[in-house]
Amino acid sequence: MRVSVIGGGTVGDEETAVARRVGELLGERGHTLVCGGRTGVMEAACRGATEAGGDTIGILPSTDPNEANDYVDVPIATGIGNARNVLVALNGEGAIAIGGSYGTLSEIAHALDFGRPVAGIASHDVAGVETVETPDAAVEYVETA
Amino acid sequence: MRVSVIGGGTVGDEETAVARRVGELLGERGHTLVCGGRTGVMEAACRGATEAGGDTIGILPSTDPNEANDYVDVPIATGIGNARNVLVALNGEGAIAIGGSYGTLSEIAHALDFGRPVAGIASHDVAGVETVETPDAAVEYVETA
Amino acid sequence: MRVSVIGGGTVGDEETAVARRVGELLGERGHTLVCGGRTGVMEAACRGATEAGGDTIGILPSTDPNEANDYVDVPIATGIGNARNVLVALNGEGAIAIGGSYGTLSEIAHALDFGRPVAGIASHDVAGVETVETPDAAVEYVETA
Amino acid sequence: MRVSVIGGGTVGDEETAVARRVGELLGERGHTLVCGGRTGVMEAACRGATEAGGDTIGILPSTDPNEANDYVDVPIATGIGNARNVLVALNGEGAIAIGGSYGTLSEIAHALDFGRPVAGIASHDVAGVETVETPDAAVEYVETA
Repeated sequence: MRVSVIGGGTVGDEETAVARRVGELLGERGHTLVCGGRTGVMEAACRGATEAGGDTIGILPSTDPNEANDYVDVPIATGIGNARNVLVALNGEGAIAIGGSYGTLSEIAHALDFGRPVAGIASHDVAGVETVETPDAAVEYVETA
Repeated sequence: MRVSVIGGGTVGDEETAVARRVGELLGERGHTLVCGGRTGVMEAACRGATEAGGDTIGILPSTDPNEANDYVDVPIATGIGNARNVLVALNGEGAIAIGGSYGTLSEIAHALDFGRPVAGIASHDVAGVETVETPDAAVEYVETA
Repeated sequence: MRVSVIGGGTVGDEETAVARRVGELLGERGHTLVCGGRTGVMEAACRGATEAGGDTIGILPSTDPNEANDYVDVPIATGIGNARNVLVALNGEGAIAIGGSYGTLSEIAHALDFGRPVAGIASHDVAGVETVETPDAAVEYVETA
Repeated sequence: MRVSVIGGGTVGDEETAVARRVGELLGERGHTLVCGGRTGVMEAACRGATEAGGDTIGILPSTDPNEANDYVDVPIATGIGNARNVLVALNGEGAIAIGGSYGTLSEIAHALDFGRPVAGIASHDVAGVETVETPDAAVEYVETA
């Protein structure tokens, strides 16, 4: 399945480690990772997925595909700015949110609006999000929901 | 100023009354109301604004401008679906959320992401939203924030 | 009715005069002008429309409503870049193209794709465009087509 | 490199054969095919590319990834309707147009606007498009331009 991984572009060591592990699990289990294609949580998750042999798609806000991080296999340039958040949410069959601020919250909301299951690790605690403690629990939630 | 009014497309009597009063206040105070142009909170708020002599802009998800409710002065058809939520948030200098589900949450998040002040009446209680009790308090918040 | 006026952002004296006259005619005849909101043909047409008492809508590529020229009554910021060309074409019931390069050609194509009549003055000579010589003929074409 | 293949959704035998051969050539030469993901020219080109071992990306107008034809490896759902034409043009480093109507013309215009080389086979004869006779000449043009 395809899973959107969403979170901030600037993150600390702990979120980076969590994101990388989420990516790794998705790669190991044969899922394709969809994300916003940039830095922070997106890059760490793509790195984990790539190192585990998984595929990654990065849906970028600008018109420049080179803006993608080094671990994106399929960069999709859009030039539609924050409206690309809608596409990030749409293209996963489920979403995993890691930390994040308002951009992440918008992706959570769009994912829920599209009927996707959303797991959150230290992320926004809003109705509809399954708050979990670990990458394993997050992946398990989106796989089974 | 321009103020986005966001909320559900299907609402009960109380939310309808609140939305209409918010629109009325915006119209009375010379503000332009921006919304998603459709039913429920959007229609009630546009009605209130129009009856108070204010202007209303409706940014629609579909390609059909006739999808706008009867109180929209300037319908903008987009054909970009839920991505139009980003434009609804962007085109206000502040936002007032009334109730609402995930679509409304996405608009709140986009508004906050664009640095807009957001007041909420019986809406999503997320960090960054000023939760208020009355239409007057909501309008006052976005005017002064 | 609403009429999209499309053309280049950098233009010479002749195109400026033609655009201004097109705007003037639209304003005189009670039509609302829709355009990309910026410089060149867009600004000249908005100026003409405004001076004739007409209304103007500018659908902008960036997130900044202040990017609109001085003669836009209703600026709509989008942040979706060139994809806003689709919205410019969509929101007129007909389009008048004046000169222009590839951006203008894209708006002509989108307008035709949406089934809109398109008149062109010294613009792209593609099948489906009614090539005319004067602002009067252009306005007449979109009014009657 | 990535090459956008653009053309109509409903086509005759000859265009189908040309599109399939264009896809085949792209696949053989290691290029990734980008298209609108649906029927007609898009499907025939994706089929040719897939049969030659190449990769295909389909950028869809609707929110439904299952709307992609059977030969799309990476479907990207957008929900932004005709505005997805901009993304189809943007995500190739060059474009090959085969026949087509106004939608195709809009993609040609957007590709040229983004500075991409565009080859056309029995397609719109507009300034900036290199009109060629064969799939080989089209692929060669975008490879070397």
